[in-house]
Amino acid sequence: MATKIIELEKPKLKDPIFIEGLPGIGHVGRIAATYLVEELKAKKFAELFSSHFMHYVLLQQSSAVHVLKNEFYYVKGKKGQRDMILMIGDSQSIDSEGHYEISYEVLDYMKRIGVKEIITLGGLGVGEQKETPKVIGATSDVGVEKKYKKYGINFNAGDKVGTIVGASGLFLGLAKIYGMQGICLLGETSGYPILPDPKAAEEVLKVLSKILGVKLDMSKLKKRTKEMEDFIKKIDDMQRKAVTQMMSQQMPPKKDETGKDQLSYIG
Amino acid sequence: MATKIIELEKPKLKDPIFIEGLPGIGHVGRIAATYLVEELKAKKFAELFSSHFMHYVLLQQSSAVHVLKNEFYYVKGKKGQRDMILMIGDSQSIDSEGHYEISYEVLDYMKRIGVKEIITLGGLGVGEQKETPKVIGATSDVGVEKKYKKYGINFNAGDKVGTIVGASGLFLGLAKIYGMQGICLLGETSGYPILPDPKAAEEVLKVLSKILGVKLDMSKLKKRTKEMEDFIKKIDDMQRKAVTQMMSQQMPPKKDETGKDQLSYIG
Amino acid sequence: MATKIIELEKPKLKDPIFIEGLPGIGHVGRIAATYLVEELKAKKFAELFSSHFMHYVLLQQSSAVHVLKNEFYYVKGKKGQRDMILMIGDSQSIDSEGHYEISYEVLDYMKRIGVKEIITLGGLGVGEQKETPKVIGATSDVGVEKKYKKYGINFNAGDKVGTIVGASGLFLGLAKIYGMQGICLLGETSGYPILPDPKAAEEVLKVLSKILGVKLDMSKLKKRTKEMEDFIKKIDDMQRKAVTQMMSQQMPPKKDETGKDQLSYIG
Amino acid sequence: MATKIIELEKPKLKDPIFIEGLPGIGHVGRIAATYLVEELKAKKFAELFSSHFMHYVLLQQSSAVHVLKNEFYYVKGKKGQRDMILMIGDSQSIDSEGHYEISYEVLDYMKRIGVKEIITLGGLGVGEQKETPKVIGATSDVGVEKKYKKYGINFNAGDKVGTIVGASGLFLGLAKIYGMQGICLLGETSGYPILPDPKAAEEVLKVLSKILGVKLDMSKLKKRTKEMEDFIKKIDDMQRKAVTQMMSQQMPPKKDETGKDQLSYIG
Repeated sequence: MATKIIELEKPKLKDPIFIEGLPGIGHVGRIAATYLVEELKAKKFAELFSSHFMHYVLLQQSSAVHVLKNEFYYVKGKKGQRDMILMIGDSQSIDSEGHYEISYEVLDYMKRIGVKEIITLGGLGVGEQKETPKVIGATSDVGVEKKYKKYGINFNAGDKVGTIVGASGLFLGLAKIYGMQGICLLGETSGYPILPDPKAAEEVLKVLSKILGVKLDMSKLKKRTKEMEDFIKKIDDMQRKAVTQMMSQQMPPKKDETGKDQLSYIG
Repeated sequence: MATKIIELEKPKLKDPIFIEGLPGIGHVGRIAATYLVEELKAKKFAELFSSHFMHYVLLQQSSAVHVLKNEFYYVKGKKGQRDMILMIGDSQSIDSEGHYEISYEVLDYMKRIGVKEIITLGGLGVGEQKETPKVIGATSDVGVEKKYKKYGINFNAGDKVGTIVGASGLFLGLAKIYGMQGICLLGETSGYPILPDPKAAEEVLKVLSKILGVKLDMSKLKKRTKEMEDFIKKIDDMQRKAVTQMMSQQMPPKKDETGKDQLSYIG
Repeated sequence: MATKIIELEKPKLKDPIFIEGLPGIGHVGRIAATYLVEELKAKKFAELFSSHFMHYVLLQQSSAVHVLKNEFYYVKGKKGQRDMILMIGDSQSIDSEGHYEISYEVLDYMKRIGVKEIITLGGLGVGEQKETPKVIGATSDVGVEKKYKKYGINFNAGDKVGTIVGASGLFLGLAKIYGMQGICLLGETSGYPILPDPKAAEEVLKVLSKILGVKLDMSKLKKRTKEMEDFIKKIDDMQRKAVTQMMSQQMPPKKDETGKDQLSYIG
Repeated sequence: MATKIIELEKPKLKDPIFIEGLPGIGHVGRIAATYLVEELKAKKFAELFSSHFMHYVLLQQSSAVHVLKNEFYYVKGKKGQRDMILMIGDSQSIDSEGHYEISYEVLDYMKRIGVKEIITLGGLGVGEQKETPKVIGATSDVGVEKKYKKYGINFNAGDKVGTIVGASGLFLGLAKIYGMQGICLLGETSGYPILPDPKAAEEVLKVLSKILGVKLDMSKLKKRTKEMEDFIKKIDDMQRKAVTQMMSQQMPPKKDETGKDQLSYIG
């Protein structure tokens, strides 16, 4: 199988709600979900590896390598809260086929754990930085929006959005096959993919914390985003470099190619 | 499996004829088959999802997401008519491999339901809008054309056509492996892919209704096409945007790239 | 499975020799093997379809569609001859992965039939039309060339060839895994892929007929090649058009795109 | 399966250490591992073929074809040494998916043989030829570097490297899933991929021989590299040509294309 989920622990959860936040525009979903993992001290129980991620490893502060992966965490709900599963990670699939494969694998796994409701998080590029970004909602089925009406979500997405690309959209769209329902929360952001937008993430987190009945201290969000920023820029930079190198390896050499562009390649 | 067929109902059909009409040039096949589904009040019994469709979901009028899919409908034949299965949908495969995979999956499924005859519908780009578009026929086997001779189909396709690309051609070409026979009906159209051509679809429907022994009121065809048009343009537009975004994600950045082109990306 | 072999008959053969001749440079291998099929009145016993061929069907003289395929024929050897299996066809894989997949499927099938020796046929582009093209030999293993020394084959391939791309090379290279041995015969040809070269094919056939102990009347070779030529040009032309269309579908539209280039597209 | 490992012998090894050195920048890993295979007179016990290698065969000095492959050798450790497995070869995967597939297949195979420690070898492009290239280390896990501290490895890789592309990185990164630990040794080299760098390989070998407790005579390294050079240049040249040809086959012909560029194509 080209996508592997390695289970570290078999969590016993009661009607857990599944929340996904992976890299994407403004890293809105990723920032929000990662902050939730940290603030709720969620526990990692599984990792996902995929041949639809780039074929390199990262070297961070230490000399240990880091394979691109997605991670699953759980939190037992406190009084009045439900149990939660959080999915965060370094990368989405780099091709169309992988997006479907990963969605199927994850939804299948979540179904076995007992998930019936999912919330996916993302950003919506609107071309400018808004003072107070709105949170746009898209649902898995017609009628589901009623359940979420009281949380201040803007449900006029159809007018302006058109499509939701990647995991946030596909998880929601394919949920019905697995007997799940849910919502996608999109925070308005300026739209340049690699610039993390903590403001949009904060607005998404405000709505999400109301839905989950969770009290969140937002004061560390900017600091945490700042810490994340270097890592995000590094991955993004490496992703671009790796793609350039892959292409230069597979492309026939151009006439004026001197080889100097490839000096940073490692093999 | 990368292509999933989700069965909603197990229809009991007697020697059903299978009719396929998916998006393509002038959307001739799609318009014709979709109109037939509506006019005959056909009932949906299965949906097909594939990792060979684009990895985004659509947001339509409501805020509910819509995964790209193909759909299967059936109609019990009235007196003098055969039972029918109709396949319509949002998309064809985006790669060569997927075209074969989907053809095999569908033909295998149809064989299990008992299909022995198939009719595929499409457009034939001829470079100009004809007053009365002809309907060109291509068959699964030499000799099959005799069966359809009385319906006014032009069987000189070999001279002008050369190839039939995608589902309409492959379904027909691979039918023999599954013990099926059939015909492809191609309505002459100007040839610009995204402009729906109800006139060509009408000519195809005229021939098809004779073959099926079905009386069709064509008066709503233009109106229905008009309604469909916005949706088609939106999908087409999104498909282009999504492809552009995919490529800009995977391509190394150009030197003069400012990021502004990516403002509408959602993740 | 993405490559299907449909068996029409289970031939009972004694130690058959397998001969492959598919499209390639100068269509040398294809012309030679197809001529052998015709002259020896070989009988078709299996067809191979693959999702690694283009996703269109051809329309030839009749209005019946033709899916791209490879075909297997057999001939029972007359006195002093061995039984033979001949593989000919319309296309090779359009991607690297498919080349391996098809090689594995075919060699596996041939092993089950009892093949222990294979001969693959092809052209070798040398940049000019030679008066008497040489036949260059490449073998599956060091030492195998001894077996073929008496047939006037040039075994200095290593000096000038470097690589053999596609089926002719891979079948030979992977043969060892399946307990087979053999040779690749390459006829020197000018090198323009779509121009069929009957002269090079004749030289290959001369060597091949000696190896097989078969008497071949070459007088019809030019005429047969002439007949084949139109079909080859048509396929080649369609292949190019189809690829252009696939790319224009998947590429973002260029600013000056008017859609007129796509007029011949059929869907 | 698209990647096949053909076992020639079932070696009985005690806690073997796995060492990988495949083609890459400066061919540092390949030169080092191949030299080790030769100097230690290691015995080949398995071969790996993959549909993620190029679809051609090579013709070397003899007229026998050579399919691209990876090879596994073993050496029984002498007194004070551990048993070793060495993986060398002609090629790495040509796509991202294949890199994962091959890594999984190999690690799975190594696990069954009993491997718990792996060492991967590669080059690190630094833009200039250093007098005494450093050997940079990256580890499978935080803390593993302690085990290798005494061997003069530079563990500040994180600062300058960023990513390790391909087999050397992925084997190490995915090792944990298979219960293995290890290190990647990268020799500093100028960075032009096709120029073999015996100096960097020597520095890597010095560190490696200390880890393995093996005495190595380095005097033949330059000569051996020289011998290897022609072969490497030939493969590299062929790889480029084959890719060019593949692309020109699949690309629509350019208006000024005369076919002359394709003269060396063989099929």
